[in-house]
Amino acid sequence: MSESARLLFGGIEGGGTKFVCAVGTGDGEILAERRFPTTTPDETLARVVAFFKEQIQVLGPLASIGVASFGPLDPRPASAAFGYILLTPKPGWAHADIVAPLHAAIGVPIAFDTDVNGAALGEWRWGAARGLDTFIYLTIGTGIGGGALVNGKPIHGLLHPEMGHIPLPHDKVLDPFESICPFHPDCFEGLASGPAMEKRWGQKAEMLPPDHPAWELEAKYIALALRSFICTLSPQRIIIGGGVAKQPQLLPLVRSKTVASLNGYVQSPAILKEIDSFIVPPSLGGRAGVLGAIALAQQALYSATSSL
Amino acid sequence: MSESARLLFGGIEGGGTKFVCAVGTGDGEILAERRFPTTTPDETLARVVAFFKEQIQVLGPLASIGVASFGPLDPRPASAAFGYILLTPKPGWAHADIVAPLHAAIGVPIAFDTDVNGAALGEWRWGAARGLDTFIYLTIGTGIGGGALVNGKPIHGLLHPEMGHIPLPHDKVLDPFESICPFHPDCFEGLASGPAMEKRWGQKAEMLPPDHPAWELEAKYIALALRSFICTLSPQRIIIGGGVAKQPQLLPLVRSKTVASLNGYVQSPAILKEIDSFIVPPSLGGRAGVLGAIALAQQALYSATSSL
Repeated sequence: MSESARLLFGGIEGGGTKFVCAVGTGDGEILAERRFPTTTPDETLARVVAFFKEQIQVLGPLASIGVASFGPLDPRPASAAFGYILLTPKPGWAHADIVAPLHAAIGVPIAFDTDVNGAALGEWRWGAARGLDTFIYLTIGTGIGGGALVNGKPIHGLLHPEMGHIPLPHDKVLDPFESICPFHPDCFEGLASGPAMEKRWGQKAEMLPPDHPAWELEAKYIALALRSFICTLSPQRIIIGGGVAKQPQLLPLVRSKTVASLNGYVQSPAILKEIDSFIVPPSLGGRAGVLGAIALAQQALYSATSSL
Repeated sequence: MSESARLLFGGIEGGGTKFVCAVGTGDGEILAERRFPTTTPDETLARVVAFFKEQIQVLGPLASIGVASFGPLDPRPASAAFGYILLTPKPGWAHADIVAPLHAAIGVPIAFDTDVNGAALGEWRWGAARGLDTFIYLTIGTGIGGGALVNGKPIHGLLHPEMGHIPLPHDKVLDPFESICPFHPDCFEGLASGPAMEKRWGQKAEMLPPDHPAWELEAKYIALALRSFICTLSPQRIIIGGGVAKQPQLLPLVRSKTVASLNGYVQSPAILKEIDSFIVPPSLGGRAGVLGAIALAQQALYSATSSL
């Protein structure tokens, strides 16, 4: 295929500490990439625009751009607040308009969704969720977030899921630790995120040895959360990424505890017999974020409602 | 429109104690209806077939039939177990094939889904969820079940949701009652279904006076469950039906406790300002089940994958 016939897409992974921008093909090949720290919205978006303008000169025009961002945000194209970050404690970013300035500067359709919905879409196109229609992408690290595709489309609904904030049973006799979430005394993120582990045990999660009791407790909370998600969303697979989930001793514990917590109630061989391929790590690694953004860009191109 | 040009649909509400069969139009008008007790699968399905054969003689041919049934069941048309009830304690119904005998006898496409996915679809076509794309239909009565549409389609995924079996925080100091679910020590159904209320308080839920502390506790558990569903599915509305939810003092308590439990985290006016139209009773009343089945039948007609 000649270079001119190949469609190019832009991807922006908007994180709380860094932005990653890339230009890629529809096959998941990345042709150019740049990362810089997240400062003010104006300065950060100016760098994003400069990157894409340079790349368009070198590589040719982009068909569309996808933004997979930290939230909360409004991903619903029909909404008046589409394209905005909502109220966030991150200085300067509350009510920041992301999509309109990019569209004004670059003039292509801009897709906009959460980082985790983006990662889910990327894993569906090129990773651990190929061939599925209904699954969850969960990240367990500094925070806990979840994205999902149902029948092949990301969940938006009211805004987007906030899977880190479901309530969980918390036995204070076994675990007297108080949730660190400023909003909820008993939520998944407040009990099981990296900072919660660090505060509970006095050292960073990745420094705790594999046989430390921290991991049994962590797996117990994750398994309760997965049971909640399984009973609500009926996913065909759950992909678990993020810094905490990288510890190799964790997922085997999570698998056995999830099966035990469901206790045979969901009669699917995926859970009863094939749990190792039901609860899995991501397969896109460090490029998941920006590939997810490129997958969003592709989706925007083929969906009339997502273009401005 | 002439009678001959009007499409007719069959609907079957398959309940644990009774079956309701109906023939209706695509506008939700019911032309004929019959109900009989649920006995053995053979006897019950024979009565279903006899009803539809009679009605076809009188009213004309059916375009399709929808079955909205108790579960667990397999609603995935591509599955080998499509159309079957799965393992159930209900005598005689484990592994009962529902769809194939109906299709063999009547020869039209048969749609098959859970009672609650059917009810969700009915409320979407003609009831409290018109115009939405992502919402939940919850029933709180003898059991607790939930159906949902996401982006306008029922959730199947692995099989179907089992929303009554999410884990909930259970403070045994405030509520020493043990869950009545034989599978889960801490699930929504085990703590908050009608039989759980009856066992906890020594009388049927509908006999407890409106100012009885039972309702505060019941609303607390329902609100925790709704927070879990909201954070996972991001619904635009939650419809709550079922015998327990009919008590008029309950929904106002559930609304205020759900807002309190989310504690401002989900930044949507639907929750922050319009909770009365976010958590609502069903609007189809006693016909919800059979209208849901008719809505399934319509969907089957327009979806190639749902016909046999």
